[in-house]
Amino acid sequence: MQLLKDRIRKDGVIKEGNVLKVDSFLNHQMDIALINEMGREFRRLFPDNSINKILTIEASGIGIACITAQYFNNCPVVFAKKTQSINIDGEVYSTQIKSFTHGRTYDVIVKKAFLSPEDNILIIDDFLANGCALLGLIDIVKSSGAKIAGAGIVIEKGYQQGGELVRSKGVRVESLAIIDEMDPVNGCKFRDDN
Amino acid sequence: MQLLKDRIRKDGVIKEGNVLKVDSFLNHQMDIALINEMGREFRRLFPDNSINKILTIEASGIGIACITAQYFNNCPVVFAKKTQSINIDGEVYSTQIKSFTHGRTYDVIVKKAFLSPEDNILIIDDFLANGCALLGLIDIVKSSGAKIAGAGIVIEKGYQQGGELVRSKGVRVESLAIIDEMDPVNGCKFRDDN
Repeated sequence: MQLLKDRIRKDGVIKEGNVLKVDSFLNHQMDIALINEMGREFRRLFPDNSINKILTIEASGIGIACITAQYFNNCPVVFAKKTQSINIDGEVYSTQIKSFTHGRTYDVIVKKAFLSPEDNILIIDDFLANGCALLGLIDIVKSSGAKIAGAGIVIEKGYQQGGELVRSKGVRVESLAIIDEMDPVNGCKFRDDN
Repeated sequence: MQLLKDRIRKDGVIKEGNVLKVDSFLNHQMDIALINEMGREFRRLFPDNSINKILTIEASGIGIACITAQYFNNCPVVFAKKTQSINIDGEVYSTQIKSFTHGRTYDVIVKKAFLSPEDNILIIDDFLANGCALLGLIDIVKSSGAKIAGAGIVIEKGYQQGGELVRSKGVRVESLAIIDEMDPVNGCKFRDDN
């Protein structure tokens, strides 16, 4: 998605240690017009009319998922919640997700009532890097018996293994921007750059 | 907002201990069409064209704020982040918010770059009860020198002191549903019920 790649080049800040800060337009301050264009593009990439629910994970996936849902017939959005082992009972699907950013492991839960075998789920998230979060969400959807239509990702770090791991499980992943290389001096090299 | 009150009556679950669960349509699974109607109503209540930014707090405020922003000329949404005392540096406004639900105190931060004295801020959140979260957000906006156009709240527990506390500080608060009484047997009594 050219608009997004241009914006990452303009406003993204690359820091040492594999850090790309996009907090001025994506995950702290959010550019709603840009996110609408993302929603429209996710719809183009996933035209399947049987998609009836979007699953994401708190916190930064939520806004993107809600705007995107408007392009999928206002389907409901379910966001997985990060907890620290309180009240994991029989009413929820749960999985563990390791966060490299925060250096710890979360229990992530979705209430069972909100996923069912009749659902065809589109997963939406802002970043795909090592794949832990996305694999956790896939795990939860599989526990419920729902179908997975695919995963729509805003920014994929293509030089990490997450995208390959998830695709090798047969899950379709569409990323609006795939970064193949980045460093503070030379900036981002995107997969489909010339 | 009648549509919301009807939905709370239909799908809200009241539990002992002052708990109203609205997780089937508002803060775990989200009804996007309903939230669009909320956004439209917030716009009607705050027609001020100088509002140029929406501030909310993670996690459940984010989706409501993003949908609402579409009714405010696609203005940017900034969400305050809950941290646990890592990296509070000079680049952020911070305040402390006590969560009664989770029984602990969070540091809540907003990057200074995203709020300025030229801004006129609408604060959006899902719940107003004791007022701690909203007072914290107001504190952050005041630190930045920005104006506060007001606060748009989805559900106010009118029998707790938060709404009065905030209004007594001269901040306009508009709540789409104000609950004056609730209990598991008799359900919700809303402020403007006959």
